[in-house]
Parts: sequence; structure tokens; C-alpha cells
Amino acid sequence: MTEGAIGIDIGGTTTAIGIIDKSGEVLAERVIDTARHGDIEKFIAEIESRIDEEFRELEKKNIKPAIKGIGIGAPNGNYYKGTIEYAPNLTFKGVVPFVELMKKKFAYETIVLTNDANAAAIGEMIYGGAKHMKNFIVITLGTGLGSGLVVNGELVYGHDGFAGELGHVTVVRGGRMCPTGRRGSLETYASATGIKRTVFELLADSIEDSELRDISFNQLTSKMIYEAAVKGDPIALQAFDVTAKYLGEALADTVMHTSPEAIFLFGGLASAGDMIIKPTKEYMERDLLKIFQNKVQILPSKLEGAKAAFLGASALVWKEISN
Amino acid sequence: MTEGAIGIDIGGTTTAIGIIDKSGEVLAERVIDTARHGDIEKFIAEIESRIDEEFRELEKKNIKPAIKGIGIGAPNGNYYKGTIEYAPNLTFKGVVPFVELMKKKFAYETIVLTNDANAAAIGEMIYGGAKHMKNFIVITLGTGLGSGLVVNGELVYGHDGFAGELGHVTVVRGGRMCPTGRRGSLETYASATGIKRTVFELLADSIEDSELRDISFNQLTSKMIYEAAVKGDPIALQAFDVTAKYLGEALADTVMHTSPEAIFLFGGLASAGDMIIKPTKEYMERDLLKIFQNKVQILPSKLEGAKAAFLGASALVWKEISN
Repeated sequence: MTEGAIGIDIGGTTTAIGIIDKSGEVLAERVIDTARHGDIEKFIAEIESRIDEEFRELEKKNIKPAIKGIGIGAPNGNYYKGTIEYAPNLTFKGVVPFVELMKKKFAYETIVLTNDANAAAIGEMIYGGAKHMKNFIVITLGTGLGSGLVVNGELVYGHDGFAGELGHVTVVRGGRMCPTGRRGSLETYASATGIKRTVFELLADSIEDSELRDISFNQLTSKMIYEAAVKGDPIALQAFDVTAKYLGEALADTVMHTSPEAIFLFGGLASAGDMIIKPTKEYMERDLLKIFQNKVQILPSKLEGAKAAFLGASALVWKEISN
Repeated sequence: MTEGAIGIDIGGTTTAIGIIDKSGEVLAERVIDTARHGDIEKFIAEIESRIDEEFRELEKKNIKPAIKGIGIGAPNGNYYKGTIEYAPNLTFKGVVPFVELMKKKFAYETIVLTNDANAAAIGEMIYGGAKHMKNFIVITLGTGLGSGLVVNGELVYGHDGFAGELGHVTVVRGGRMCPTGRRGSLETYASATGIKRTVFELLADSIEDSELRDISFNQLTSKMIYEAAVKGDPIALQAFDVTAKYLGEALADTVMHTSPEAIFLFGGLASAGDMIIKPTKEYMERDLLKIFQNKVQILPSKLEGAKAAFLGASALVWKEISN
């Protein structure tokens, strides 16, 4: 009988739920609206009914995986406590005892939760480009910047389960406002939102023509910036360079903490490929101490786009069982 | 029979060699001049003869410890390779295969080397204030700034053995020159040398009277700055505040990497106690993301001054054997 795990990726907008076999093959998947319910009990009830649906679908195909547990990736997810705490982009406020609530619905022994970037790192380790690595980092470039640090083959959770918040290191003293009330944190520069803010700063500062001058802040997406850059738009090109500079410089500091073999970029902005990876690497190298130079790879995540998030979450189960 | 280990701390000026029993009691100790020989073979020959001396001294007292190995802390020491690489303050140039050379002289199975700050961290874990901690950091504030990071109860060596170079994260873009040829790294602000440079910057900028106006750069020590600060000297007081600001802000970024339970300050400047610890903590807290606030202690190292370094080095042996 095939062994499998359920992976749940909770995002601000949507939540993806997959049943994945141990080799990483997605057997069934559903996407639900995270915000629709507001109420956490109703949200979990919908997760439960969608998982039931998935099992019925598999049964029809005569696939009956032996499910070993549920892995959950969520913003501000705490591995030790199984809680989601004060996640600014979720409608569930305060401290949500998510694993505890799930255990009331599901009898699996292993139900484990961590933040979404940590789940991505575990996914990279089990199914992606970090299969043979003991020391690496995954950076997720979405609305914000998340990170999962792996040291000696283990995820770094820290003493409280919250380690790996690289999006909040300060890169510009008194710099851009962050939703956390602080200023100048990395994610206000290096993320899908950050590059938008950079475009608007450049449009204000420069007098160069750009197709981005016709797009409002709310309309603009990092994909549009990428497409403009590919066509040679000077503002878009410069925006990628500025983003890479902040990211590369911050990653140099990070390398001097944990000296990883590779740093994987994951998520929307990372799909710009060499447009972001090449200059990020150059800026990083420029700042590194000699003993670290030309050693650390910056690579695109090898997890497949839409499925990557719940694949990572499901991988948490195998990691947990092996510990 | 008492079990023991030999601890060797190699510094730019002196090298301390101790025989320590497993409980951390120093049975014998010697200090030699590191720079005197220049030649690495002669240096190791002197280490050997001093260790012989120590054993003869112990024999007279009828103490015959069962020595389990040798632990060595050295600047730019590489744990994986057992080498000292391009250490700027040592007369031994290039890559020195220190463990290999020691193995020619000593038959112990365990001869292990790491950088001095990592040795201090292992010492803190085995004999100091971090006995029950799994996630902590030791910062050594000497001529430069060194660091040892512990995650999940293990020292972070990174993929290449060089992790934990927090002295070289950039805190001021285009800031003070560093002996590495880079600019603005943390240790040019937060170290015994850094606080001297800050005093001179303040003496140049301000018109306030200060007893430090009578002392040359080469004469000035961090101890003098501390003593002036205790007497209320305004420049000295301000210099501690500036030093704490850079250190605290950098430590906030570090906390967002590994979320340690405590950060221990070790070495000359750390002996200023609350004069440096209190403001460092305040500046760190101001920069932390809410989920990290009021959780991370900043503490003075609990290892006893002069013996701390080789005590940490000897502790490497026990850590190695337990792995």
C-alpha cells in the first residue's frame, strides 16, 4: 500500500490541500478560499470536508494511500506550539491553536505545523534541490519575504519556534514603513511588494520614460515589472537591480551567520530567474568575507510552482517521523 | 582515575595551555609567546615541551589524569579541516594544517580545532552559563568581534566550517575600514578597537572636555574608556552608548536568524558589565519584531576570565567524544 501524507498550505488568500505520496507525487488536490469564513472552526470544517472529497476521489480510482499524518505551513506558524500567532494577513486573529483544533477532527498521530517558509525549506530538502545538502536556506519572495534556515540537516526553529525571520532584518535605518510598525526591514525592499515600491520611487526620482508610468500602484504586479524588464524598460530593469542589491547585501550577512552551501529563491518574484538571481549573487559576493567568496550558490527552487507549498507542508510529516 | 583534556587557546600575542579535568578544574597551566617563533614547527615543539612540563608537575603531586584528547581554539580555525587559515593576527601565514602537525607529536585519538569564539561557546555550554540551553550565542569582544552560534544543541559550523563570523556583517555602508579591506563591518564599531575608534570620532566631533583628550590612539585601551565612563566622562559614556547601539542593532538581526534563548558577551569589553550590556539590550529590543521581544537575555559569560579560553578549548574534546 502506498504511504502518503496530507499537506496544507495556508495563505492569506487561498489554502491549498493536497494528498501526496511519499515519492512526492500529488494524488489529489483542492484549493479553498482562506478568508471566506473568518471563523476558524468553519475554516477547519471546510478543510475536513475537502479532504473527505479527496479521499472519495481516490477511492473511485482504487487508490488507498496509508496516510501517515498532516503537515501544515502557515504564516507565523509556530512549530513547537502548533499555533498560528498574530498573522497579519489572516482573518484569524490572536493565537490560534491550529494543531489542537485539527486533532479534534483527525486521528493521525502526526499533525505538525510550521511557518510557510520553513515548510518550503523542508520541501526543498525532501523533494527539491537540497536533497543532499545539510546546510542551506530557502528565501520565499512573495507579498513579504520569508525564510527557512537549515543547519546540520535540521530546520532552525530557535528556542521559541520563531527563528528564520530574515524578512525583518533592518537594511535601511529609518527606511520604508513595514506593516509591523517598524522601518527599513528587508521585505519592504526585496519582495513582490518591495519591487513595486522601488518602481514607484524610481518613477518619482527619474524622468525616464517607462511603460510603468501608465499603471497605478494597486494595479502593478511584480509580473508586469518582470515583463517590462524583459522588453528593456529602464525603470523595470533598474528596479530589479535595486531589489537584488538589498537582497544580495542582506544575504551576505546571512552567509556570515550560518555559511550555507546554497540559497534557494522561491515564489513569485523568484520566477524572474536570472533577472533577479544573477545580480543578487553579484551583490552578495561583493560583501562577503574572503573565506566565503565563490562558495555559496544562489539557485531557483526546484519545487514545482503551484504545488510547491503543500508539497513542502506534506514533507513535514516525513521529517517529523524520521526524527 | 580522573579524566582530563588538554585545552590550547592560540591568540595573536599569547597561547595558553591547560590540563583540565572533566569537571572543569584546571590542574596545570602555562602561557607562551605565540609570535616568538614565527615558525610553526618550533611553535608546536614549544607546546609539546610545555605540556610535558605540566605532566611532570602533576606527577609530583601524584595526579595522573587519563587524558582524552586535545582541544584547540585559534583565530580562523576550521573545524572540518583542522586548519588555521589566513589568520591576520598570527605570524603563521596561509593555511596551516595544525591538527595534522599536532597528530605527529601526540597520539591522542581526539585532537580537535575550531575558532576561538566557537571554543568559547562550547565552554559556555559545558562549564558556563549555557549548561541547559540548546540555542544560544557567544559574542567575544576583543581586538575584533568573534561569535559562536549554537542551534539545537550543536555548534553551527556551516557547510565549510567557517560559520559564525558576525564581526563581519555590514552595519554601516561605506563605514569604517576593516583589516579585511571591506568597510563598515560590525567589529570596526563593536570591539575593543571599535570603541577606541568611536572615542576618537567623538573627540573630533564634540567640543566637550574629556580626560581622554590627553591619551594617544595607540595608548588608549578599552579599560581606560571604561574607567573614564565610571567617573562620568561624557565622551567615554557616549562611546559606550554608540558601541551598544551598533551591537544591539546587529544582534536584533541575528536574533531574527536563529532566535536564541540568550546571548553571552565574553572578553575584555564585556567586563564593562552593565555599562555595555544594558544599553545593548535596549537597542536590540527596539529593533526586534514583536514575537521576539522580551525573550532573549543578554548575559555576561560565566567562564572565568584568564582561564576561560583554554577551558572552552578543552571542552571541545568532551563535545567531540559525546557526538
